[in-house]
Amino acid sequence: MTVTAAQGFLASGVAAGLKESGDPDLALVVNLGPSRAAAGVFTSNRVQAAPVRWSRRVLADGRVCGVVLNSGGANACTGPAGAADARVMAEHTARAVGVDPDEIAVCSTGLIGVPLPMDRVTAGIDAAAERLSPERGVEAAVAIRTTDSVHKTAVVSGPEGWTVGGMAKGAGMLAPGLATMLVVLTTDADVTSAGLDSALREAVRTTFDRVDSDGCMSTNDTVLLLASGASGVTPVPDAFAEAVHAVCLDLARQLVADAEGASKEIEVEVVGAASEEDAVTVGRSVARNNLLKCALHGEDPNWGRVLSAIGTTSAVFDPDRLDVAINGVWVCRDGAAGESRDKVDLAGRRITVTIDLRSGAESAVIWTNDLTAEYVHENSAYSS
Amino acid sequence: MTVTAAQGFLASGVAAGLKESGDPDLALVVNLGPSRAAAGVFTSNRVQAAPVRWSRRVLADGRVCGVVLNSGGANACTGPAGAADARVMAEHTARAVGVDPDEIAVCSTGLIGVPLPMDRVTAGIDAAAERLSPERGVEAAVAIRTTDSVHKTAVVSGPEGWTVGGMAKGAGMLAPGLATMLVVLTTDADVTSAGLDSALREAVRTTFDRVDSDGCMSTNDTVLLLASGASGVTPVPDAFAEAVHAVCLDLARQLVADAEGASKEIEVEVVGAASEEDAVTVGRSVARNNLLKCALHGEDPNWGRVLSAIGTTSAVFDPDRLDVAINGVWVCRDGAAGESRDKVDLAGRRITVTIDLRSGAESAVIWTNDLTAEYVHENSAYSS
Repeated sequence: MTVTAAQGFLASGVAAGLKESGDPDLALVVNLGPSRAAAGVFTSNRVQAAPVRWSRRVLADGRVCGVVLNSGGANACTGPAGAADARVMAEHTARAVGVDPDEIAVCSTGLIGVPLPMDRVTAGIDAAAERLSPERGVEAAVAIRTTDSVHKTAVVSGPEGWTVGGMAKGAGMLAPGLATMLVVLTTDADVTSAGLDSALREAVRTTFDRVDSDGCMSTNDTVLLLASGASGVTPVPDAFAEAVHAVCLDLARQLVADAEGASKEIEVEVVGAASEEDAVTVGRSVARNNLLKCALHGEDPNWGRVLSAIGTTSAVFDPDRLDVAINGVWVCRDGAAGESRDKVDLAGRRITVTIDLRSGAESAVIWTNDLTAEYVHENSAYSS
Repeated sequence: MTVTAAQGFLASGVAAGLKESGDPDLALVVNLGPSRAAAGVFTSNRVQAAPVRWSRRVLADGRVCGVVLNSGGANACTGPAGAADARVMAEHTARAVGVDPDEIAVCSTGLIGVPLPMDRVTAGIDAAAERLSPERGVEAAVAIRTTDSVHKTAVVSGPEGWTVGGMAKGAGMLAPGLATMLVVLTTDADVTSAGLDSALREAVRTTFDRVDSDGCMSTNDTVLLLASGASGVTPVPDAFAEAVHAVCLDLARQLVADAEGASKEIEVEVVGAASEEDAVTVGRSVARNNLLKCALHGEDPNWGRVLSAIGTTSAVFDPDRLDVAINGVWVCRDGAAGESRDKVDLAGRRITVTIDLRSGAESAVIWTNDLTAEYVHENSAYSS
């Protein structure tokens, strides 16, 4: 179940010839309404791809009729010509589906700094427009993949007859050379663009924003939420926000689980923090520590590297009162050795590192992966 | 030439049995005076090893008569027992060389969280004290190595008959599981502790602080500068500061050159910055970008990853006016493709990435290494 799980949406995907492999690489999602309210969250990188700049403007009035997405080229760092190409993608899609270009969002993913072959892109848009169907959500999810080994979709149905569905690609290690996360969520609930915006921002803040596979931030990250209102139901805001959060969390976990080159899924759980911000800061510092990520790859419960990473932050804690558990074994108590590290079993794919800052009641979870020779290989060999 | 290049210093190194390999692992440096002025710079990590906490107190009065250093164990995250062990090391050394324990600095490097075998440490101190000699500086430099493939020493003679010498070990990739940099500098110039402090801080700020092999910060980093005054010469402050800087730079470059697991030495040069802080921030962000470090390992001049890393900072720049050169070829102009990437030759070991922010006249250089499968291997296999 995907972007067409909600009523009022069409989708399709085709192979436009943007990828050398000949795999599908262009997708459309069209909102039939009656509402076309929308919200979006974009990369916080100051170097932003042309499609991100375009889509920000499209989203400004809270209304989106469709999205054109391509893999096989990021259209990032492509100068004024790249900006023109993003506009042409919107215009061509708008003509094909009969709406205004200012109502078409554009998402691209692939190598940075390389212009898109626009003749293939426009031909692909025409072919995709002809295939648009309420049955082809999976086709769209397949076409936005880069090095993802599987396509990623999720759906949650609300208690009042509405549905939130979505598709995602990418994230850090998943995407050598591109590192882009693209997500399109759809709903047939009748929600204003302000309501969509608030539900989406809160969901992204605690899901996609807390996936940190390699600390690298893309030029193209985009998360869109489109509402058709086709169910005719205006949901209870809390129930709707919960559904959007559940779909985002499901997709975020799928991104971490499919991180190519990774052999471990690592959950860094920070508790006892003085503030949620402290918990996120500490979690991110630990999740980005290459030495720890190597140790966990080697199934070494090296809690000293956890402490080293915590110590680089300005969070509230006393170095002599830090507790750390790895897979539930408190190997560090009061900033020194605790239970025997021999008790820690790291053979499985999932690892939980729990850090108790013992300075308050706030907490946060950051999801990451281990650092492997395969990650190095994929990211050194991809574009050469 | 090393810590005994300057007059008034003795040194030695022995195998105390702290390393399983049986390699040398304990060193002494003794200052015979007449002056014993000293200055120190320590890790900014808030999780600090017991010897760092001890040495900070020793340095507080600007006077140090000797340093005891060991590899084979960091004595970090070892609780109150570790603090007692650091004190015993100082006391035992003080007795052996006939000074006060409060005048002995302690430096340790090795695995975190494991207590030192103190019987071996004290026996090693006795053995090292018996060997103390103005000829054994190299012995000391050899004994502080962990995974360093060579020992590192440097010396600069001032124009007025005084000398600054030093030894170093470690840094990031060099030191799987420990990641510690220890440096002892000596001089026979007659300089007050305040003069030493100001020369050392300025030198460290633009040398060791700008080596960033893997973004990981140690619990044990220590840089000490001891003056004997034995030359009888009070140097011109600028000439002295320049000599200290030159020795630090020489040692810092040796650390990067010997980074195990690395195949490239990368110099990230940021020019055209609005402030030196901006230049350092941008350089560090680029130097820590795993995707770029993998690309350069694969000899791929992937300037898009440079731009992505710049974009994550809050430095002053316009994304559409960024220029990037790799080994002198301006592959990115105005935030988009510039000269052909095919012109870039990355076959050599040294790579320079130049970033022109075009926003001012300030600059900085950060030194780093590439990210390799060997790095992952060393850091996942070391302690398991």
